[in-house]
Amino acid sequence: MLLDKINCPNDLKKLDISDLPLLSEEIRDCIVKKVNTTGGHFAPNLGFVEASIAIHYVFNSPVDKIVFDVSHQCYPHKILTERKEGFINPDKYLKYTGYSAPEESLHDVFKIGHTSTSITLALGLAKARDLNGENYNVIAVIGDGSLSGGEAFEGLNNAGVLNSNIIIIVNDNEMSIAENQGGLYENLKLLRETKGKSELNFFKAMGFDYQYLEEGNNTKALIELFKSVKDINHPVILHIKTLKGKGILAAEQNKEAFHWIVPGGLDNFGKENNTFIEDNNSITRDFLLEKAKTNKNLVAITAATPGAVGFDKNFRQKMGKQYVDVGIAEQHAVGFAASLAKGGAKPVLFILSSFVQRAYDQLSQDLALNKAPAVLLINWCGISGQDATHLGVFDIPLISNIPNIVYLAPSNREEYLKMLDFSINQTEFPVAIRVPLTTLMPEGKEDNTDYSILNKFKTVQKGAKVAIIGAGDFVRLAVETSKLLKEQTDIEPTIINPCFLSGLDTDLLDELKKDTKLVVTLENGVLSGGFGEKISAYYGSSNIKVLNFGAQKEFTDRISPDELYKKWRLRADLITEDIKQALKS
Amino acid sequence: MLLDKINCPNDLKKLDISDLPLLSEEIRDCIVKKVNTTGGHFAPNLGFVEASIAIHYVFNSPVDKIVFDVSHQCYPHKILTERKEGFINPDKYLKYTGYSAPEESLHDVFKIGHTSTSITLALGLAKARDLNGENYNVIAVIGDGSLSGGEAFEGLNNAGVLNSNIIIIVNDNEMSIAENQGGLYENLKLLRETKGKSELNFFKAMGFDYQYLEEGNNTKALIELFKSVKDINHPVILHIKTLKGKGILAAEQNKEAFHWIVPGGLDNFGKENNTFIEDNNSITRDFLLEKAKTNKNLVAITAATPGAVGFDKNFRQKMGKQYVDVGIAEQHAVGFAASLAKGGAKPVLFILSSFVQRAYDQLSQDLALNKAPAVLLINWCGISGQDATHLGVFDIPLISNIPNIVYLAPSNREEYLKMLDFSINQTEFPVAIRVPLTTLMPEGKEDNTDYSILNKFKTVQKGAKVAIIGAGDFVRLAVETSKLLKEQTDIEPTIINPCFLSGLDTDLLDELKKDTKLVVTLENGVLSGGFGEKISAYYGSSNIKVLNFGAQKEFTDRISPDELYKKWRLRADLITEDIKQALKS
Repeated sequence: MLLDKINCPNDLKKLDISDLPLLSEEIRDCIVKKVNTTGGHFAPNLGFVEASIAIHYVFNSPVDKIVFDVSHQCYPHKILTERKEGFINPDKYLKYTGYSAPEESLHDVFKIGHTSTSITLALGLAKARDLNGENYNVIAVIGDGSLSGGEAFEGLNNAGVLNSNIIIIVNDNEMSIAENQGGLYENLKLLRETKGKSELNFFKAMGFDYQYLEEGNNTKALIELFKSVKDINHPVILHIKTLKGKGILAAEQNKEAFHWIVPGGLDNFGKENNTFIEDNNSITRDFLLEKAKTNKNLVAITAATPGAVGFDKNFRQKMGKQYVDVGIAEQHAVGFAASLAKGGAKPVLFILSSFVQRAYDQLSQDLALNKAPAVLLINWCGISGQDATHLGVFDIPLISNIPNIVYLAPSNREEYLKMLDFSINQTEFPVAIRVPLTTLMPEGKEDNTDYSILNKFKTVQKGAKVAIIGAGDFVRLAVETSKLLKEQTDIEPTIINPCFLSGLDTDLLDELKKDTKLVVTLENGVLSGGFGEKISAYYGSSNIKVLNFGAQKEFTDRISPDELYKKWRLRADLITEDIKQALKS
Repeated sequence: MLLDKINCPNDLKKLDISDLPLLSEEIRDCIVKKVNTTGGHFAPNLGFVEASIAIHYVFNSPVDKIVFDVSHQCYPHKILTERKEGFINPDKYLKYTGYSAPEESLHDVFKIGHTSTSITLALGLAKARDLNGENYNVIAVIGDGSLSGGEAFEGLNNAGVLNSNIIIIVNDNEMSIAENQGGLYENLKLLRETKGKSELNFFKAMGFDYQYLEEGNNTKALIELFKSVKDINHPVILHIKTLKGKGILAAEQNKEAFHWIVPGGLDNFGKENNTFIEDNNSITRDFLLEKAKTNKNLVAITAATPGAVGFDKNFRQKMGKQYVDVGIAEQHAVGFAASLAKGGAKPVLFILSSFVQRAYDQLSQDLALNKAPAVLLINWCGISGQDATHLGVFDIPLISNIPNIVYLAPSNREEYLKMLDFSINQTEFPVAIRVPLTTLMPEGKEDNTDYSILNKFKTVQKGAKVAIIGAGDFVRLAVETSKLLKEQTDIEPTIINPCFLSGLDTDLLDELKKDTKLVVTLENGVLSGGFGEKISAYYGSSNIKVLNFGAQKEFTDRISPDELYKKWRLRADLITEDIKQALKS
């Protein structure tokens, strides 16, 4: 294998150009095997093998700096920069994260997992280089899909007027995570069709020198292109057309399905799966399809991640005009939802916890200040073993400290359905619902709660001495803890399901003072600025003691939930221990 | 006066087109007198008088919807929509806010004061209209300066493919708040120079039908243009060239100085002011100018608001390449600062509290996750009588709950200087400094604190029984309260200046347990998710009682600080009262 001889870019440079297509195939093979085993970004990486080889053949990393947008295409780069064992040795498959990671290699400058940042980050490096009187190439690699995000545009606008070296490679595989959305993509299509010759050129209009390469999977052509701009003294866009999923027919033909796959995703593709298991996505989908029939102005919205929230092709087709994918554009998504609501429609925006933070200002100004009665479903919430760039623990401080937004946390299937129903029928305020990573299980009895009575907590079990407030899917943990506490101490605690994360039920909290000595809060998110601290503050001047359990303020990086639960004492046995300790003091 | 007969758009429509230039002059006069009296946005409004008249002459508001971006140009619209008394009657000058405000009029759909949102908001209305089977025009008015903000681009990209009516008026006055920045503005220049005929056209590249009007201050020409697109069935950009400050020579010639003026700003323009009074801006400016001499990679950065933070022409000139205005592009600004720091430079980003929230994801991902040692100076922080769109009270929850960012709050001039010095010399983590609206006064003795010892609180006065923790400029309030408490109860409280908002001094807090019964926290910002709640949570399981004082979670709208201080009991007398009450219970 050629790859046996390659550990770093210098090894690569020793190969003859004629050897590189074979190397591409070897790298592609590694990626296919590795990702089909562990899951991960599949098709974007396969399409960028040749370009990654050409970049490292021509440029001089880590002196020259390469910034990969969102890092969905960084596997070939990782293989070429001393990390191939993570792709060829099954025992090391989980050693490296799927994203750019400076802690792994000098060849990665930034830890990146959110889109549309590469041009901005590259521009900062270029400016620092110029101020320091240094001399190297700065290269941003951005996919066509990432271009729709606002920061990419802000970066382009500023980069266009830099009077020195910055090279922006637009990896145009004609896809975002799903289909591209928007007027810009008509221009990219025109540019591809005219082989870059069209006078109407978005990039030139932004002030850039521009070159187009039709054969973006041809190593030789790429090397020529990159050599022609190496050490260039001004900003340049290299628009290269690549094939997403290249080398695997199923991926080439099903780009969205193969953007990211689960373990075995390639092997099992196309095999019928008749075992339907209900999950949060299917609950939501069925609810919306039903409501959309009679509410012709109900619109389901996603910002480029329909797959992540279960908006499959069948759903999109049935929803028709009542489904909008705005592309990678979270700020627009939130503002658009707010405006639809003000215009009398019923928007329901699906967005992941980790990505809703990309639109804080729109949550505050467009949505909350305007009391726009839009519905936001915040998905993938809670402690997880995710990469540090994809944590779902910061949404409670993010959303619940903004005035006017009602933030609901269902603890089971029936509550979720009732909250959905309430949120789309009310017209008073924005409602966000925290959809946990864990599946909301049926409780077996219908929820008749009137959620228009704001901040009314539910008493799940009336006990004494201790009260455990478990938010959202941590009602379960409260119940478990209660059982253990009862077993070990004979104390039967009160259990409370707050339902609301954005306000306190002061009547209930006052009532608790009568027979409660200790209040325990449990939340599946970061404590800092979150729910539990508000309970502590409320009881600050009373005789009630409060213990808060939740995630600490840190970016955890692929640490297993079990380890985190142990570390943060988020287990019934550990909480019980702490309760007993607190009661002693 | 023609204006006497005009209360609403229907009155306007009765005038002959030949009367409109005179009406323009009358409206312009009102605005000049009013804004010169109260202060406010001056030049942007003067440039948009004719266009506002033409819009209301042609379109049918409030059935047709008009969305003004950032509302810097909405005064003529307000005058024409039943609010002229706020501009002609000095007694009513303060009746209306300077921004779009639905609570004032049906002709305003949204409360808006942050930039770059208009296209997104207009698109939501257009989509709602289409879903509801309604039929009206939706018009977005956006300045050239606002186009550089990411959300504007996200909105354009999505609006470009709408298959129905949306009219986007680009009010090109060749200025942002200060000069425009970026490649896009080269294209706008080219379009102006070619009277819209250039083949290279940013808007067409985004998929839009496009018309250019050279005479953007000619009512008749504007009316013809608007009539030609009324009820259009697809998206269209109307690029009109206007004169910022039109009608007032000083403003036409000094567009930046007249973007927003203080009361008397026109009358006093050009008069020498020899009374220099030091303020936070001048402290910062002097510090940076001095440091920039020896630190050639120190860069001061603003996102389009150099005036608001005191970056005057002299400063910009002296800083040269060490000053960057990125335009309206807060996401880019934060990512750029993070990247400069990773590239070995020393970025210092100035940004207002109300606008830093436009870059939460960049604070979290680019800056904090990457531990980029950039410096952020968060300006205009604290409770104020500002419009609801410009509050400076949400930055503590926003920033302090993100891991890895050190958030410092100086209480006086010397601390501020020492913190600045510390922040630009350290290379370990991002540092944000909370610069209050109030002036940081000299204490008279140098600050020798070593701020690299993180989360070390300062004991200002050692007392007993009660401890008052006053954050930032509320150390002053802590001292006042201490005096009053001593007078009234003979209790001399401990006074603590935490200096850090992003972490707790647990040693000091534990030490306090020995002789303290009640801890009081004071913060000049919203309590929800803020500093005080963390103290409450820390003492939750102890016998210490805690009272938190700060702003409640609400969007206050032009309510005087005195009223807010009273309402939130943020006065020494009221706090003392509450302390005495708490000590009794």
